[in-house]
Amino acid sequence: VYKKVEHEVIEMVKMTKSVGRDPRRIIHSIKVALAITLASFFYYFKPLYDSFGASAIWAIITVIVVFEFSVGATIGKGLNRMIATILGGALGFGTHYLANLCGDKGQPLILGALVFVVAAIASFMRFFPSMKARYDYGLLIFILTFSMVAVSSYRDDEVLKLASDRFLTIVIGSFIAVSICIFVCPIWIGNDLHDQLVNNVENLATFLQEFGAQYFRSSQGVEQVNKASMHKYKTILTSKQSEESMANLARWEPGPRKFGFRHPWKQYLNISSSARECAYRVRVLDVYLENNDQIQIESQFKEEFLRMCKESAKALKEVAMAIKKMAPPALASAHIERAKATTENLSSLLANHRFEGLEMIPTATLVSLLIDLLCCIEKVADCTRE
Amino acid sequence: VYKKVEHEVIEMVKMTKSVGRDPRRIIHSIKVALAITLASFFYYFKPLYDSFGASAIWAIITVIVVFEFSVGATIGKGLNRMIATILGGALGFGTHYLANLCGDKGQPLILGALVFVVAAIASFMRFFPSMKARYDYGLLIFILTFSMVAVSSYRDDEVLKLASDRFLTIVIGSFIAVSICIFVCPIWIGNDLHDQLVNNVENLATFLQEFGAQYFRSSQGVEQVNKASMHKYKTILTSKQSEESMANLARWEPGPRKFGFRHPWKQYLNISSSARECAYRVRVLDVYLENNDQIQIESQFKEEFLRMCKESAKALKEVAMAIKKMAPPALASAHIERAKATTENLSSLLANHRFEGLEMIPTATLVSLLIDLLCCIEKVADCTRE
Repeated sequence: VYKKVEHEVIEMVKMTKSVGRDPRRIIHSIKVALAITLASFFYYFKPLYDSFGASAIWAIITVIVVFEFSVGATIGKGLNRMIATILGGALGFGTHYLANLCGDKGQPLILGALVFVVAAIASFMRFFPSMKARYDYGLLIFILTFSMVAVSSYRDDEVLKLASDRFLTIVIGSFIAVSICIFVCPIWIGNDLHDQLVNNVENLATFLQEFGAQYFRSSQGVEQVNKASMHKYKTILTSKQSEESMANLARWEPGPRKFGFRHPWKQYLNISSSARECAYRVRVLDVYLENNDQIQIESQFKEEFLRMCKESAKALKEVAMAIKKMAPPALASAHIERAKATTENLSSLLANHRFEGLEMIPTATLVSLLIDLLCCIEKVADCTRE
Repeated sequence: VYKKVEHEVIEMVKMTKSVGRDPRRIIHSIKVALAITLASFFYYFKPLYDSFGASAIWAIITVIVVFEFSVGATIGKGLNRMIATILGGALGFGTHYLANLCGDKGQPLILGALVFVVAAIASFMRFFPSMKARYDYGLLIFILTFSMVAVSSYRDDEVLKLASDRFLTIVIGSFIAVSICIFVCPIWIGNDLHDQLVNNVENLATFLQEFGAQYFRSSQGVEQVNKASMHKYKTILTSKQSEESMANLARWEPGPRKFGFRHPWKQYLNISSSARECAYRVRVLDVYLENNDQIQIESQFKEEFLRMCKESAKALKEVAMAIKKMAPPALASAHIERAKATTENLSSLLANHRFEGLEMIPTATLVSLLIDLLCCIEKVADCTRE
């Protein structure tokens, strides 16, 4: 038993270390704790407590629920919560007023029916794609506040006081969360998306570089190829959903350091999806040569392949730099032109070469795949230019 | 202005229709409304109201927050919320007891310090991958309940009553949500995942079928090719994240109709990721032939290509059936063997054929890509057998 516990503890420490390697996570945890402590001053200081009483708990709840890792997510949740609370509260109060008109017996029936209808409609609206992307949390809070105000109005006549206290404390809680999120080491999701896109394009370039070095370099100077950095491109293959949600959150962020408020996040998704098309080809190339390890390619082809990989990689690096600096990729087209020249050389070599038996299959396949990849790279560069 | 409003309304109706095409969404909305109505009986009936008082609001809040589209998600959230509430409440009560020992002056200091430390640690733990996948919501509620009980204990001496009332109402709310979710037209996320996997593999098979018909059928009998169903495979390319979260949620579900409790959802993810590898190749094939529309392939090759596509498609269909019925794919290997025989025919045809100039590039490329694809299909079949 002792050994097992020891093992568990060691695992735990390892996990903590690996999670804590990103210092932003530690900072985030401290920020959350700080915001909760700030919000709980409503309890500790008597003058503050006297003005809100037990409703002050909503400030603490709001801070905890609204505080997210990135500024965009926190602002989005805070705004959603505030707007939904005021709308839900107002509608709930209206329902209370309407039900009051119907006398003691009708009141619960009217209340129940209205709550049922509003809750069903709002739940259904959560499925609308445009709502789901940015206002899902708001609709949830709308249902919540509306039901709370409408239902509790049946027993509690101070429903207006309840609704307004709840709204005020939620506004205060949201402000505490958003301000700490923005003013203490902010984490802008827009920056993250930007960096991730740059990284993705750079990883593709790295793959092509290492790939060329591994398979097409002349046998004299065999260098060690870095397999790990070569395979970093794999994350792009499946990053679509996370990028889309990042772009959705980034739209909540006011212009941070580098970007304007109306930064074209949609353009990012376009570049990213054309980079993903590149990655599919890269994946096929990668596995193709891994499975056909002992294929023989004549050295004259190898040279051209190597040059083509190098030029394509350079073009991608240019694109990555251009995204980083948000300038048009000036030199990328020159590299693409040079890579295209190589494909012409390759074609004429192929046309004049006499192959034995099945020898030409790998060479011909590589030519097609690399030409195809080049088209994709050109599209990435075009997207970036816009 | 009138025209604009009319346009908006028409858009709205269109949107509603397209969202409502899935009747499960309408049913879900009604289920949510029903659960809220049930929970609000705590207010409408005096005997029920007398036992909980204003704490009954937590039952309504719980129903709204816990109720999700699928059974797995609802159970997961309900369990998380209940367990986190009892743990957070217990720890909060302990903190209250400890702070009470320190006298009037020390109390807020001790409370503040403990809340700060616990909130920071729990926030940090939310980053652990194993926690994030299944207990993220629980950790949030833990922080929430702990802070609520600990902080409000400073002003309210009935903290034990508060904590136990909150816990009881949350249990009741969770039970209402989970039972309505399970007993009224349940939506099992496990079934969805299962169906999606079957669909994905079937879409790949459809692509190969239509692809063969479009490019390799002899010119006499040109059939209309269904482009839309041909391109359905595209969803597989980017479905990884949604499948992983579905598998995580499915693990909360008790054995529904067809599956056991310990259904191997991990195996599903394996099959799915090998199907995704197929899809990358399919994507490259698709774009390759689209870009090279006028390529000439000799009719003897076309026949073999067509046969190969057909056999591969049949093998994939077998696999899809096998997943559907949860039986080993008996006939898949026979189809794969036949497809392999075709590749041998193709190789010998290629070896003996004399090509002019660059003519052999497309044929050789197609051979390599199809062989590569066949390897992937074999892997899918192997995964399914396990």
